[in-house]
Amino acid sequence: MGGMKTVDFFFDFISPYGWLAARQLESFPPGLATIRYRPVLLAGLLHAHENKGPAEIPAKRVYTFTDVARWAHHLGLPYEGPPAHPFNPLLALRTCYAVKEDEARARFAKRLLIAVWEEGKDVTSPSTIETLATECKFDAKALLTAAGSPEVKEGLKLQTQEAIRKGVFGVPSFCVDDEFFWGSDRLPFLKAYLSGDLSIDKNALEKRLARPRAADRRI
Amino acid sequence: MGGMKTVDFFFDFISPYGWLAARQLESFPPGLATIRYRPVLLAGLLHAHENKGPAEIPAKRVYTFTDVARWAHHLGLPYEGPPAHPFNPLLALRTCYAVKEDEARARFAKRLLIAVWEEGKDVTSPSTIETLATECKFDAKALLTAAGSPEVKEGLKLQTQEAIRKGVFGVPSFCVDDEFFWGSDRLPFLKAYLSGDLSIDKNALEKRLARPRAADRRI
Repeated sequence: MGGMKTVDFFFDFISPYGWLAARQLESFPPGLATIRYRPVLLAGLLHAHENKGPAEIPAKRVYTFTDVARWAHHLGLPYEGPPAHPFNPLLALRTCYAVKEDEARARFAKRLLIAVWEEGKDVTSPSTIETLATECKFDAKALLTAAGSPEVKEGLKLQTQEAIRKGVFGVPSFCVDDEFFWGSDRLPFLKAYLSGDLSIDKNALEKRLARPRAADRRI
Repeated sequence: MGGMKTVDFFFDFISPYGWLAARQLESFPPGLATIRYRPVLLAGLLHAHENKGPAEIPAKRVYTFTDVARWAHHLGLPYEGPPAHPFNPLLALRTCYAVKEDEARARFAKRLLIAVWEEGKDVTSPSTIETLATECKFDAKALLTAAGSPEVKEGLKLQTQEAIRKGVFGVPSFCVDDEFFWGSDRLPFLKAYLSGDLSIDKNALEKRLARPRAADRRI
């Protein structure tokens, strides 16, 4: 009561690890934290940090598809994947952002993640989004209209910038207190942190970060 | 007898995850596989794949140092880290490469990984390498001389190129059969694979990889 922490779950539909995270969160102990689904544009994070996504490096793309298949096997999940990838996630992100209420947005976001990654749906299509929104008992037409509004477009940008300010460079990322955890594979660390079983020496960390660089590539 | 697989453990001293992997491999079931320690130059992998390392993206550098501290806490390991990072790992990699016998090289590589990451040793220093080689009962002077030979320099390059040809883009990576596993955090998958508990549908994977790209950033 009262003491439950809120975890900001920054995700983009383009990353299958957001889907894997949503599925793995099903077995999180209830009452450990409130998970707030917050859509962000991965391309915006990559641009800000001058980073590349896994789909932008051919060998890493092959590896990532393989890794996701292993995770799906490990978790016993069906894995279909979208008809094209990378795809433009803006429509899906904006529609999701347009759902103002946290619990409803979490439900919708998860439904979309499953649609993309388990059912092979094309969420760049307004009619697919409409069908899924209707399934979630939303006023689908109103939601799609809201998704196209300047407020929502700007809101998604600002949310992406907020993530960048927190140091988030990839998705999914989980932010709580002044900590963040990157990747569905770090959910055990998030869980340990929330349970008070993961503490690190911040002083020692700062000292290590302050040490000099002795070699840099020209890039 | 005869059926034990060999896993190529590609690593660079510059990555703390190689150290974490070496420590985690201590609890691998004996007899599951032979682990062959094979040094490669991470900078070479990054260059070939036009990728950046975690230390080359400021926010990712901070996150990585944090993540390693969490892993050290989780595994109960002391974590000191090197006096400067990134550092030039070539001397350490070449000295390690110069140890021709697999078991001896594994022992030396692990000793160096621990020296860098648990004890804060500077392995860019020949005298540090000499001390550690002597501790491992090698003829340290002869090893350092070999490390400077054209054969060893070229051998390390070729080994790095071999890893690149296998699709390896980061370290540590574990290659066995036609599979590879990237990161100390994927050792459970490697273990499952070696135990016959991790099979994925390669046909389905190929089909997903062959689907079109629908959106690309200009980078």
